[in-house]
Amino acid sequence: MRRRNVHNAHERLLNAAPLVVLEPTSYKGKWQSLFGNDNEIHLEIGMGKGKFIIELARRNPNINYLGLEKYESVLIQACDKLKDNYPANLHFICFDANNLNELFKEKEIKKLYLNFSDPWPKSRHAKRRLTSSIFLNQYKTIIDGEIEFKTDNRPLFEYSIISLNDFHATFLDLSLDLHSREEDIITTEYEDKFSQKGVIYFIRFTL
Amino acid sequence: MRRRNVHNAHERLLNAAPLVVLEPTSYKGKWQSLFGNDNEIHLEIGMGKGKFIIELARRNPNINYLGLEKYESVLIQACDKLKDNYPANLHFICFDANNLNELFKEKEIKKLYLNFSDPWPKSRHAKRRLTSSIFLNQYKTIIDGEIEFKTDNRPLFEYSIISLNDFHATFLDLSLDLHSREEDIITTEYEDKFSQKGVIYFIRFTL
Repeated sequence: MRRRNVHNAHERLLNAAPLVVLEPTSYKGKWQSLFGNDNEIHLEIGMGKGKFIIELARRNPNINYLGLEKYESVLIQACDKLKDNYPANLHFICFDANNLNELFKEKEIKKLYLNFSDPWPKSRHAKRRLTSSIFLNQYKTIIDGEIEFKTDNRPLFEYSIISLNDFHATFLDLSLDLHSREEDIITTEYEDKFSQKGVIYFIRFTL
Repeated sequence: MRRRNVHNAHERLLNAAPLVVLEPTSYKGKWQSLFGNDNEIHLEIGMGKGKFIIELARRNPNINYLGLEKYESVLIQACDKLKDNYPANLHFICFDANNLNELFKEKEIKKLYLNFSDPWPKSRHAKRRLTSSIFLNQYKTIIDGEIEFKTDNRPLFEYSIISLNDFHATFLDLSLDLHSREEDIITTEYEDKFSQKGVIYFIRFTL
């Protein structure tokens, strides 16, 4: 990633408020005040260019959506898609998922989506995977409902099943080839581009 | 299955003793006496034509192996492979796995193998799958160690992961493409014939 791009992205993100929440930690415990209602809040961690969460927000106006993305240069691409015409039930946050407890109080989020997160293939980086116990412990505190996890990375899915089982998660649904189901599945950009090369793995669970 | 074949198989099985144990329930709680040593006993349920368990028995002379097969007409084909030249640490049993508790006392078996068992695809037959809670409850009583499960059937594997997790099994190892591993894997006849068509799913767990 070139610095010029990052620098541009930062300035553009500042201009993308209030779609982008500029001081997100100030909303800990009071996210519903941002939306101006008491509807459920659903979170996507690693929203990337936002196709998935934007589509969810448009389909479900009575649910509030927060999209978290670590990289400014990626998040700005989601903002560019919406320009000034974004749903009132959607906001984006540029933040590192390692510090979720700075963003949300206990049980503040009703549902969590994890789509095609970084597989961190080296064993010594296993703790960085979004289904490691480090993250599951944070989710257990802030999530009061279901978590959906999708990936096309076989080793990450194998790791995740074992990690979730070790954590005594409850598996509600699981597919080793999600797209073989005859359902209306909301996809990410990545999923559209790469799923024809192989299968999409899926698990829905609670902690 | 034609009756003539079954009839022949029955007579031939009677002649295959002592490789085939003719009154297996009489050994409940004293299987080691059959082998004449106190080595661990490992069990395969649904051994089919026996390639997998015969190979295990030949490689590991210090472990006792019992192969269970419901169908006489299938089991006789395993016997035919060995004729009178069978390892001393191997015996076969023609028996229905629904009644395992008639065969074994608590903790009598150290390891269990379940290879390519019937997927019973209809939901109303789910309880017949060898990874349903009906069977897991029996395994929990008689197995004092690990269980290895292999299948090429995706819906059966998806069901099994959820069923095992519901049962609070501990997942020790899991692969969504076992043959992609660079290991010396002992295969079944079925596996040799069909694994090139797709992946082999694998899980090793304790109850």
